[in-house]
Amino acid sequence: MAFSDADMDARAWLVEFLHAEGFQAYMDPIGNVIGRWGNKKEPVVMSGSHTDTVPDGGAFDGTLGVAAAIAAMITLREADNELAYAMEVVSFADEEGRFGGMLGSQALSGQITQSWIEQAQDADGVLLTDAMNAQGLDAASALGCARQPGSMKAFVELHIEQGPILENEKVSIGIATVISGICLLSVSLKGTANHSGTTPMDQRRDPMVCAASVINQIDTVLRHHGSDQSRITVGKIEAWPNTPHTIAGTVTFTIVIRDTDKAVMGVLQEALERTIAATASRHDLWNEITPMSWLDPVVLDSDLPETAERSAAKSGHSCQLMTSGAGHDAQSMQAICPASLIFVPSQNGISHTPEELTSWDDIERGTDVLIEMIKNLTRKTT
Amino acid sequence: MAFSDADMDARAWLVEFLHAEGFQAYMDPIGNVIGRWGNKKEPVVMSGSHTDTVPDGGAFDGTLGVAAAIAAMITLREADNELAYAMEVVSFADEEGRFGGMLGSQALSGQITQSWIEQAQDADGVLLTDAMNAQGLDAASALGCARQPGSMKAFVELHIEQGPILENEKVSIGIATVISGICLLSVSLKGTANHSGTTPMDQRRDPMVCAASVINQIDTVLRHHGSDQSRITVGKIEAWPNTPHTIAGTVTFTIVIRDTDKAVMGVLQEALERTIAATASRHDLWNEITPMSWLDPVVLDSDLPETAERSAAKSGHSCQLMTSGAGHDAQSMQAICPASLIFVPSQNGISHTPEELTSWDDIERGTDVLIEMIKNLTRKTT
Repeated sequence: MAFSDADMDARAWLVEFLHAEGFQAYMDPIGNVIGRWGNKKEPVVMSGSHTDTVPDGGAFDGTLGVAAAIAAMITLREADNELAYAMEVVSFADEEGRFGGMLGSQALSGQITQSWIEQAQDADGVLLTDAMNAQGLDAASALGCARQPGSMKAFVELHIEQGPILENEKVSIGIATVISGICLLSVSLKGTANHSGTTPMDQRRDPMVCAASVINQIDTVLRHHGSDQSRITVGKIEAWPNTPHTIAGTVTFTIVIRDTDKAVMGVLQEALERTIAATASRHDLWNEITPMSWLDPVVLDSDLPETAERSAAKSGHSCQLMTSGAGHDAQSMQAICPASLIFVPSQNGISHTPEELTSWDDIERGTDVLIEMIKNLTRKTT
Repeated sequence: MAFSDADMDARAWLVEFLHAEGFQAYMDPIGNVIGRWGNKKEPVVMSGSHTDTVPDGGAFDGTLGVAAAIAAMITLREADNELAYAMEVVSFADEEGRFGGMLGSQALSGQITQSWIEQAQDADGVLLTDAMNAQGLDAASALGCARQPGSMKAFVELHIEQGPILENEKVSIGIATVISGICLLSVSLKGTANHSGTTPMDQRRDPMVCAASVINQIDTVLRHHGSDQSRITVGKIEAWPNTPHTIAGTVTFTIVIRDTDKAVMGVLQEALERTIAATASRHDLWNEITPMSWLDPVVLDSDLPETAERSAAKSGHSCQLMTSGAGHDAQSMQAICPASLIFVPSQNGISHTPEELTSWDDIERGTDVLIEMIKNLTRKTT
């Protein structure tokens, strides 16, 4: 996870690796690792993704995009053509949103605020500032990491799809045109912890039963207010005191709402808030809903998909336009430059688990397309 | 909690306290603390309860019964009457069922088996044998702690009601005639951990949604198969990997079933097992239901309630017969001698939480009745 010892070890290793390959490389003050090839000043063409992951995540999410970008940079160097633009490789910090955003790419694209930095905390209540301090990093320096407008020519990210669509449709390359927004809510329900044997069923104030009822109603909320791009997930739950023979006093859980349409996200959030309030009231419980983070859906650059399609055609690989249900660094970068997001298939649509897998053939196809795009974008005539 | 450092410190303190008061006292090989007054051999009159507690429990559950029994023993000594029977005070080990039973009182009453000792584990998977070893105790010695049939004249336990009935009915003393049985099930639901953004709602195998549906159906199971003494509680839940942006791969939770009728308990267990299997099947999930422990309902001695009623009348305190929704050491002791369970009111019916409270007046009334009962039971003419 972001800012864990393992994450920082991997980033230190990456800087060393890039140095050993003969590239300029450094870790910026908030943990982004950046490598560079080419003598040209700004604007630069950047490619990469992230090397942080989720608990019990897989090996391909993020890391593939960093590795493929390095492959592209090595290819550029070996081709030894004169570049019109320098290329940079990046591994962004905390893409997985341990602290509720995409710290690294949002900082680079100038979308971080001082107040967010001070307040951001993870699901366990650890402050971003404390987690970064513990690794010798300074969250306050995020504001200074912003690239200037006009300094970036394009950003291209290769990523695993993390869903079943490409595999189902037997297509090698997905080209995202829009990325779903993400709303993360934390819900706390508080009743009365009490003895499971002596408290009659009709005299309980049981937040576990209430939480179950709320989760059970998500399907109805989606049917009434969602689109076919809507996703609502309860992935985390904690009960207190969490012991078999005691009725829970407090239950907290997270709700993640995603859609490609900001208005739909808002309607779903309101519908869930009404559902939670009504259900808590019916169970005579106190409830609190805390918005932890919000990322708008992002429409990606309208020209780059054509470049991607041409690159796929030149490489001989099938491709299709699609939406991205997952958030990615490309959506942050779109705020400062044209950004593109290229998908390769995920076997069985599985991700965020050790079983996530993309075949070597698909990795090669995706990297072919990425290299072709980077060649186009760094070329004199482009 | 049982066999924690705090539990063992309290037990060591109790032995010292009893010694300082001039009583014989010792901790037996499995952690029961026993104090004694009187020269007579067997059978003895025993009173007490337990000093272990639940996580974030209260100060009165169990401890009050030990303290009141000591008060009774001090009163007997001060009265300096010749006793027909010796009195023993006891604080039983692990009444709260950290390891799924009532180890101390079940061992003393000869109801422990070698296979149970070897297999018993707590909700975190810690083995009873390991937890006891860590405190210098030997679980295997539980078999040797059994008292001989005929060695006990009676067991009397004073306890807080832990429910709202006495307070609601403005009665000072409750006399239990039957104690609910307890069935503890552990339920595990396994689906596919996956990305919360890219996995369409209709392609998920989400055990969180399934667990919520099961918990939501408990009310229906109770209405169809329960009695007015039935209680079903889900107090503990754990999701894996338990992170907001990942659909859970596994969710486990406990179900505690209680009733005063063994047949009703069995019917409820079967109905829940059918509900879980059907719901898991509907969500395309693997499910496993593990019976962790089972305690039959226990009908207490039929003569002692009359002794209790006479003692309450002599003390001038109101009383009523009732059932006990909670399990208590008295139910184990009924297997080896006549056992009685006396309740005092719990303010707001609250227990197993730091807010549990019994007024000093109610504590005095309950102790009056306990002392009167012990006097009766140890008296020459009884």
